[in-house]
Amino acid sequence: MIIIGERINTSIKAIRPAVENMDAAAIQEVAVKQAEEGAHYIDVNCGTFPYKEPDLLKWLVNTVQEVTDLPLCIDSANPEALRAALSVYKGAKPIINSVTAERKRFDSVFPLVKEFNTSIIALCMDDDGMPETAEQRVRIADWLINTMTKGGVDINDIYIDPMVRPVSTGTHYGIVALETIRRVMAEFPGVHTTCGLSNISFGLPARKLINQAFLISAIAAGLDSAILDPLDKRIMSFVYSAELLQGRDDFCMNYLTAFREGRLEV
Amino acid sequence: MIIIGERINTSIKAIRPAVENMDAAAIQEVAVKQAEEGAHYIDVNCGTFPYKEPDLLKWLVNTVQEVTDLPLCIDSANPEALRAALSVYKGAKPIINSVTAERKRFDSVFPLVKEFNTSIIALCMDDDGMPETAEQRVRIADWLINTMTKGGVDINDIYIDPMVRPVSTGTHYGIVALETIRRVMAEFPGVHTTCGLSNISFGLPARKLINQAFLISAIAAGLDSAILDPLDKRIMSFVYSAELLQGRDDFCMNYLTAFREGRLEV
Repeated sequence: MIIIGERINTSIKAIRPAVENMDAAAIQEVAVKQAEEGAHYIDVNCGTFPYKEPDLLKWLVNTVQEVTDLPLCIDSANPEALRAALSVYKGAKPIINSVTAERKRFDSVFPLVKEFNTSIIALCMDDDGMPETAEQRVRIADWLINTMTKGGVDINDIYIDPMVRPVSTGTHYGIVALETIRRVMAEFPGVHTTCGLSNISFGLPARKLINQAFLISAIAAGLDSAILDPLDKRIMSFVYSAELLQGRDDFCMNYLTAFREGRLEV
Repeated sequence: MIIIGERINTSIKAIRPAVENMDAAAIQEVAVKQAEEGAHYIDVNCGTFPYKEPDLLKWLVNTVQEVTDLPLCIDSANPEALRAALSVYKGAKPIINSVTAERKRFDSVFPLVKEFNTSIIALCMDDDGMPETAEQRVRIADWLINTMTKGGVDINDIYIDPMVRPVSTGTHYGIVALETIRRVMAEFPGVHTTCGLSNISFGLPARKLINQAFLISAIAAGLDSAILDPLDKRIMSFVYSAELLQGRDDFCMNYLTAFREGRLEV
């Protein structure tokens, strides 16, 4: 399971002032903690500062790379901010988060994937807006995967995000997301799937329960990456448990090690 | 989701002396509590008293039926105990727990299903012993379903149990169980699937995590019944969450009601 640590995001209360005041130590502490708790990538997002985003994202990349060798997931809807950040990035191949099949967005982000040799999170959305069915999502994923691999990107560098919609706005959206993950993993060998966990529970109480159940169900459907908070012990405990149940943990070693190191929260 | 409450079982520490001393009030309290927390059936099992099992099981049936109208799940490997219990049973159709495809066991239990017009939990096991693969389990399920429906049993009265084996003894057993559930539900429309949650985690620490993840994954695979402890708020919370994610909760009403009534434990 490829864990993308989501904690460095200016939409999170404690992070916003740290980025605004360029408090490197505060950001670096969050980066190091996520690395210690099992993140494979550190996401950096300062999208709540649209006017300063290129500068702040560049600063975030430099700041985080000072304290960890983990690759970053560079998270912005703004191609200028992505370019600024990638131009100072060094080390292991990063992920761009994200592109869609919306033509304008695709044409402005995809060249960066090629120019900077990155991996890419690609959302199942196109110019027709938010898709309704799993069928539509798989069709968009097909277009994204085909277009990018024909353009020279390795399928292993593509992370398809099923575009999760809240079950509170349609009780079929749980099945739609899980079915999309299952089909994308089955029909495009080598591709990754990833997603955040919180959209699914938007508008409902006791959201963590739904987020946890969704993560476990998605791993059972084949999900092999997630954007989540690695400091959330319960969520990480379910990552270990779900991987174990999917036969992805030889001799239960990861699970048993996590238990011995006190990482499991029952 | 059809919940079979598992708490009245003499292998549980507090239940053993209550049954041994025929303490009706103690047993009735556990029955009523399970009904209040959402059980659809009350399982009764006194298999740890093999020499007195027919008498004690009969007593359990009478005792529980004094305080609840819920149907019972009559749980024994001993056909004599089953017959004794069924002969005093009254009210809504009970479940017999359980039969297998072992010829001797099948021939001694199946006539009771017919004679007393019961539902039946049928384990995926035959005279070749514990099956190894999902393929073998589906083949046994096929034999059980075909033999019983040809014998006049409605497919809706059959609950297939995939015979869960611990992942600690083979890391593929999680996938085997989930794949069995998925295939049985897909290939035999109308049949139910059920199972207990604790076998999967046998031999590992922090078992509740694995049991919870297994329940959620199994519901995602189509499981529509489970033998569990309805007094365990966390497990019941995940039942509500997993059902919600499978589109089985119109307008999120069950989930929201459970939240309002304080039944969800985050």
